[in-house]
Amino acid sequence: MKILVLNAGSSSLKYQLIDIKTEKVLAKGVCERIGIEDSLLKHKTTGQEEIVINKDMPSHTEAVSLVLNTLVSEQYGVIKSMDEISAVGHRILHSGEDFKCSVVITDEVIKICEKNIKLGPLHMPANVMGIKACRKVMPNTPMVAVFDTAFHSTMPEYAYMYAIPYEDYEAYKVRRYGFHGTSHKYVSSEAARYLGRDIKELKIITCHLGNGSSIAAVCRGKCIDTSMGFTPLEGLPMGTRSGNIDPAAIEYLMNKKGYNISEALDYLNKKSGVLGISGVSSDFRDLVAAEKEGNKRAALALDIFSYNIKKYIGTYAAAMNGLDCLVFTAGIGENTAEVRERVLAGMEFLGIQGDMEKNREKNNGKIRDITASGGRVKVLIIPTNEELVIARETYELVR
Amino acid sequence: MKILVLNAGSSSLKYQLIDIKTEKVLAKGVCERIGIEDSLLKHKTTGQEEIVINKDMPSHTEAVSLVLNTLVSEQYGVIKSMDEISAVGHRILHSGEDFKCSVVITDEVIKICEKNIKLGPLHMPANVMGIKACRKVMPNTPMVAVFDTAFHSTMPEYAYMYAIPYEDYEAYKVRRYGFHGTSHKYVSSEAARYLGRDIKELKIITCHLGNGSSIAAVCRGKCIDTSMGFTPLEGLPMGTRSGNIDPAAIEYLMNKKGYNISEALDYLNKKSGVLGISGVSSDFRDLVAAEKEGNKRAALALDIFSYNIKKYIGTYAAAMNGLDCLVFTAGIGENTAEVRERVLAGMEFLGIQGDMEKNREKNNGKIRDITASGGRVKVLIIPTNEELVIARETYELVR
Repeated sequence: MKILVLNAGSSSLKYQLIDIKTEKVLAKGVCERIGIEDSLLKHKTTGQEEIVINKDMPSHTEAVSLVLNTLVSEQYGVIKSMDEISAVGHRILHSGEDFKCSVVITDEVIKICEKNIKLGPLHMPANVMGIKACRKVMPNTPMVAVFDTAFHSTMPEYAYMYAIPYEDYEAYKVRRYGFHGTSHKYVSSEAARYLGRDIKELKIITCHLGNGSSIAAVCRGKCIDTSMGFTPLEGLPMGTRSGNIDPAAIEYLMNKKGYNISEALDYLNKKSGVLGISGVSSDFRDLVAAEKEGNKRAALALDIFSYNIKKYIGTYAAAMNGLDCLVFTAGIGENTAEVRERVLAGMEFLGIQGDMEKNREKNNGKIRDITASGGRVKVLIIPTNEELVIARETYELVR
Repeated sequence: MKILVLNAGSSSLKYQLIDIKTEKVLAKGVCERIGIEDSLLKHKTTGQEEIVINKDMPSHTEAVSLVLNTLVSEQYGVIKSMDEISAVGHRILHSGEDFKCSVVITDEVIKICEKNIKLGPLHMPANVMGIKACRKVMPNTPMVAVFDTAFHSTMPEYAYMYAIPYEDYEAYKVRRYGFHGTSHKYVSSEAARYLGRDIKELKIITCHLGNGSSIAAVCRGKCIDTSMGFTPLEGLPMGTRSGNIDPAAIEYLMNKKGYNISEALDYLNKKSGVLGISGVSSDFRDLVAAEKEGNKRAALALDIFSYNIKKYIGTYAAAMNGLDCLVFTAGIGENTAEVRERVLAGMEFLGIQGDMEKNREKNNGKIRDITASGGRVKVLIIPTNEELVIARETYELVR
């Protein structure tokens, strides 16, 4: 049984074709510049070189068609006919308060997703477009929506509510939602599997550190709190996002810089974070290199980022009244030893002790246990795999 | 030696006359409605009934004069002449980055305070007015400025920096400052004294929970982090303040409610917090009463407030890599057992165990140890006394 996983952006469409029995990726790729000139498809069949196909894609419909044609093509294909694709799993940003888990896509589901565009205006229009395009091209293939927010829907009310008038929460649904849900779900379940323990016995903190970064408290298999909020701007400082800041500082900066609120948000989303602090880059490889050359602001950016991770670990250890396992995942979490080292230093009080030599070993794409001998809390690096979660959930719902 | 402590608000002037040898309050009171019709002075000599004097006070200068006349008056006075006042200590909101401790007030200090009005536009103009009025009436008495922010000036750069462009920090001094410094300083030093330990050996978390609420991490006597930020809006939810919220949620609410940024800040400062959640009151006595009557939103407000305190305790235990003592102070911290009980429940992982019976005992105005037997972290309730700290620091600088 083969599942096609789709992740539609405003001008892009990422895909993976996964054999759900072996959980192997058969092929993957991305359509870029959809609706723009010079659109192209990058496609890679597992075990072969990546190929590039230049083809006009005025909309996501042509992109889905091109992906399917490529998957069944004699030259680059991995399946004989579209019928081999048993189901399609769509990555959808926002569930609002309407869905608490993945769902089979129906007309009703699409309507609700359209209603929730206001909660994710940057991603949701493309997500919905991806679903509609796919329905046009594969009208008889079942489809599933897997939401980035759904894993966090188990948060208790006192964790997801902001302290604003309750009526405005009711009217506008302004609350903490959290994101990266499929990743937090995947790595926490992988951690339990790796430790040979039932996840229902474990208190796990998962640090998804990538272009966007968020941390989740996974208590006995359920998310009870997470650092991102109403949008992915809240929480940790990130590549270009400020994360938490005094609301009154935003007003102050707006007055000083002559920004309106939309410009201020743009500034906090795109010009802040470690890029803003360092003045060097939003890429942590650049920051580490700059720090080695003596760049103090790059070192400060790494310090601020790591200190804020440390703070959230303490926060969630308190929220769960315990901690059994700490997981690092995603680009920075898996690859940037300099961040992990800073986070792990001086955390013995919480039972966290990292083996700094193991921490420095190169990423081998597998789960790595970097717990120091005697460390009570297991410290793991786990490569995330959001597409696999989407494929699994899609399979569960359509089989 | 007697020290007059002054705290000037925009239309008020609070004062205490303290004998620095005995640390006893000789008299205290407040001028209200300065610059408004029907201004009045409420004055209380220790051990006597409060009296009210109705008198026109067009400005803080007349208020200072009235306070002094009352203190030396035959009927209500406690001193024979103004000369008995050895020094005046002024409570000043904001030190900016200019002062790291209390300072003797000079022309230069006043100039710097005027420059820093922009950092505290609600309080600083009155603070400066208070100084100037006092200089006019008592030109030969030495004066000291005690800043609400100064105790937090020991925060490391990675703790006080927001993740915004570094140039904007440099140009506009937008960073975390923290407030309630004199209270955090006082109760942390009182905790060490009570425990018979050197504060330099202790890791203390101080929870100042009042109309405004903030938490500080006091590591070996120095503040290393605190929950309030650029202004007192950041951090915990408070009576009417939202505390932390996703910056993007502010934009969303502005669009939905048709607010400009100034109206949005007003909403977050005055209509949010536990008042907004509960719809009942910003006063915790009302919330506790409403909860007892079955009001679910009042209970939720108490839950949210307490959960956020719990989170900060975890945050700062991680930041200090340890915790020896947890202190509750100020109105709610000293009096609201229902909040402390929620905070202390399920914190064994951090070594915190409260004795829930002792917790319920009535406030007797003294230090209370509510640690459960076997609790590793000392849990103390300590009445705060900001005026005493101001008097002490004033004395230290002028003696």
